[in-house]
Amino acid sequence: MERTIAAISTPQGNGGIAVIRISGNDAIKVADKVFFGSKKLADCDTHTVHYGFIKNEKGEKVDEVLATVMLAPKTFTREDVVEISTHGGSTASRAVLDTIIRAGAYMAEPGEFTKRAFLNGRIDLSQAEAVIDIINSTNELAQRNALSQLEGSLSKEIENVRNELVHLAAQMQVTIDYPDEDLEDITTDDIRNVAHDCKNRVNKLLSTADSGKILRDGIKTVIVGKPNVGKSSLLNSLAREERAIVTDIAGTTRDVIEEYINLDGIPLMLIDTAGIRNTDDTVEKIGVEKSIKSIEKADLVVVMIDGSGFFGDEDVEVLHATKNKKRIVLINKTDLGQSKYVEAVKAKANGSVVIEVSAKTGMGLDILADEIRKVYNFGELAREDSAVITNMRHKTALIKAGEALGRVVEAIDMNMPSDIASIDINIAIDALGEITGETVSDDIVTAIFHSFCVGK
Amino acid sequence: MERTIAAISTPQGNGGIAVIRISGNDAIKVADKVFFGSKKLADCDTHTVHYGFIKNEKGEKVDEVLATVMLAPKTFTREDVVEISTHGGSTASRAVLDTIIRAGAYMAEPGEFTKRAFLNGRIDLSQAEAVIDIINSTNELAQRNALSQLEGSLSKEIENVRNELVHLAAQMQVTIDYPDEDLEDITTDDIRNVAHDCKNRVNKLLSTADSGKILRDGIKTVIVGKPNVGKSSLLNSLAREERAIVTDIAGTTRDVIEEYINLDGIPLMLIDTAGIRNTDDTVEKIGVEKSIKSIEKADLVVVMIDGSGFFGDEDVEVLHATKNKKRIVLINKTDLGQSKYVEAVKAKANGSVVIEVSAKTGMGLDILADEIRKVYNFGELAREDSAVITNMRHKTALIKAGEALGRVVEAIDMNMPSDIASIDINIAIDALGEITGETVSDDIVTAIFHSFCVGK
Repeated sequence: MERTIAAISTPQGNGGIAVIRISGNDAIKVADKVFFGSKKLADCDTHTVHYGFIKNEKGEKVDEVLATVMLAPKTFTREDVVEISTHGGSTASRAVLDTIIRAGAYMAEPGEFTKRAFLNGRIDLSQAEAVIDIINSTNELAQRNALSQLEGSLSKEIENVRNELVHLAAQMQVTIDYPDEDLEDITTDDIRNVAHDCKNRVNKLLSTADSGKILRDGIKTVIVGKPNVGKSSLLNSLAREERAIVTDIAGTTRDVIEEYINLDGIPLMLIDTAGIRNTDDTVEKIGVEKSIKSIEKADLVVVMIDGSGFFGDEDVEVLHATKNKKRIVLINKTDLGQSKYVEAVKAKANGSVVIEVSAKTGMGLDILADEIRKVYNFGELAREDSAVITNMRHKTALIKAGEALGRVVEAIDMNMPSDIASIDINIAIDALGEITGETVSDDIVTAIFHSFCVGK
Repeated sequence: MERTIAAISTPQGNGGIAVIRISGNDAIKVADKVFFGSKKLADCDTHTVHYGFIKNEKGEKVDEVLATVMLAPKTFTREDVVEISTHGGSTASRAVLDTIIRAGAYMAEPGEFTKRAFLNGRIDLSQAEAVIDIINSTNELAQRNALSQLEGSLSKEIENVRNELVHLAAQMQVTIDYPDEDLEDITTDDIRNVAHDCKNRVNKLLSTADSGKILRDGIKTVIVGKPNVGKSSLLNSLAREERAIVTDIAGTTRDVIEEYINLDGIPLMLIDTAGIRNTDDTVEKIGVEKSIKSIEKADLVVVMIDGSGFFGDEDVEVLHATKNKKRIVLINKTDLGQSKYVEAVKAKANGSVVIEVSAKTGMGLDILADEIRKVYNFGELAREDSAVITNMRHKTALIKAGEALGRVVEAIDMNMPSDIASIDINIAIDALGEITGETVSDDIVTAIFHSFCVGK
């Protein structure tokens, strides 16, 4: 029997509310030892909320709380769950958690609630992974995609393909085991067709992995240009966008080197912004030579040219250094009047899109957004229910499955015996099962849930 | 009619759950526009929880949530409340909040939920202030005291005193207005007695203010001693205590200068710890001269002497520099054997308690805790339901009330006319009313709630 666990499920820090979650067979029993309301939680209906106090073993009040009773199986973990909503701040929530632990619950391990949802069959492994993706998502598109994965968009497609292969393997087994019986034999053509179809479906999923990675992490974007061209103005203009989420990378609070920006729904991860932010507005210290490394790392390069100034050697140098990258060229400072150099820039831009903007007023940034959207096909990604591969583990498993199915087709084309194909079909079945968790080692499951936060 | 408000009530940051609170007449209506479960929330019983999805105006799923319906008046604000529990992480909770705002709710201002609880008469002003004290509390004792204040321990005593004075003032008014009628006249002795009794009760509350401040902020403690005496070991030993809460002061992440330590339930605010932490274990750079300022600021000085070394001039200098402070002297390194200098130290300690400890093993730290408890009378503070003044605003108002009541007694003793006393009685009534919020200006109410976080 699984022990009853408890943890603070809301983030650390000061806020109005903290929530402590208790899950397990004894959740109600443990909660009733510490919760004092108008009646025992054991006598309450499922999915009801009750006002009361948490008291410690000495009978001292620890906090004023709301307790929510949710009885199995309609809960997050499929076990009995009690959620205690305490006053925010770490002291009250920790004191309540301590009291609950002393009443018989065990401190939950990272991800243990979600792990139980998985082990109890409420969600499969890819859905469990979607939970952490939702929490960690840096933009709405990624969050919505993770939600779709949580709802089973990926699981469903993987299971459909896998079931076809399982059925195929079973038919082949029968044909091998009882070759003389009068069962409907499966033909090599049938095997080839199913394998080929499944391989296509696996590859279709795999084809979303590049966009998926961008969806998840944002488009790694670097802004380059000669000093004083307006890079920091652009950065500020982008960050000012209504829904901008500017996140510090942990440990670099003072030198923000990456910022997440949401440009009209497009997740940009702006890299190497510390240099830009740290300079004052008039003299930007970061030159091209220093940006070379950032350019190499970037998915997208935004080249800035000062339309009000002189289009000179330095600008040409920047355009040259970025000519092999996906890039968009901005002619800045249109607020100061029409640039004389638009044609000259276009001539040197090697076919890249050239947009006139004013980083200061924000003019033209909508066109920038549209162009980025075109380049990265974001319309497609935003479609609900479409399975998009964002997870490296899933990608690896799909590659393994696709290769195995490719070998099946090849073996049949080369007239090799069907038990060779059978081995590869089983490899594909197992690889797909790794994604949903049907054929995955305990070590991998453990590792996945250990990347979760405590309380989820 | 108050508009319907919404905010994220859990702290920012990654966690398993975020909670968005909606409050107001239209809370259910707004929630029903965005929440899609098995039935409309308008058709649900109060204090019930419902599984479903938040969808935006395009019908796109924003997150999978639990919605809790709580109907007025049995809610935090005394208004209809819906709490939406979303996946943790800022993206999901912000997206859900955005959707709710677009459906007609207004972003809540800081403290606006608690402000409504106050304006709607569920709690008084001192209880509202207790809410923020619970959230900001740095130790369990302070949190428990704030909880007791939230439950009305302070309000009750203030109201009792204030009601007596209101009754007294009314009687005096009758005597002044209808001197010829055959009403039972109040005597100056009666007035003096009531005023004197009320003054004593006000002063009794005021006498808790010093302990209250310590309770709230912790005992400002500084550890001093010559280099290499074991200050950093003591610091580490204290921080290792099972329930230690070590908090960084905002903005000083890299140089922690204050740490909150919970030593057997005693809240210590260790000051000037940066110098101790930053030195390596063997050579501590902070000498006495550098600590003079910290000593001045401290409520309590812990002097450390190396019992395994030589008790010399430097130690005597430290003892001399701290002789006028509340202090405890530790003879450290008893793990290396009995010190030869115990008597010598005691002779120079000017009557301060001298304890032999091992900062390394933790031996003797329980005695340290006991001694601090004695010095600060913490047993008294830990008593439930005892009103303790922790708030400077309350202290100021009580001083005002006490002084006015003192003048009442004085006026009577000097045989001055009773309408003079009447003025001071009304000053006292108003001062006490400031604490509970009955006679407080809108500006002060606004200022108080603006110190709250958004979502509370």
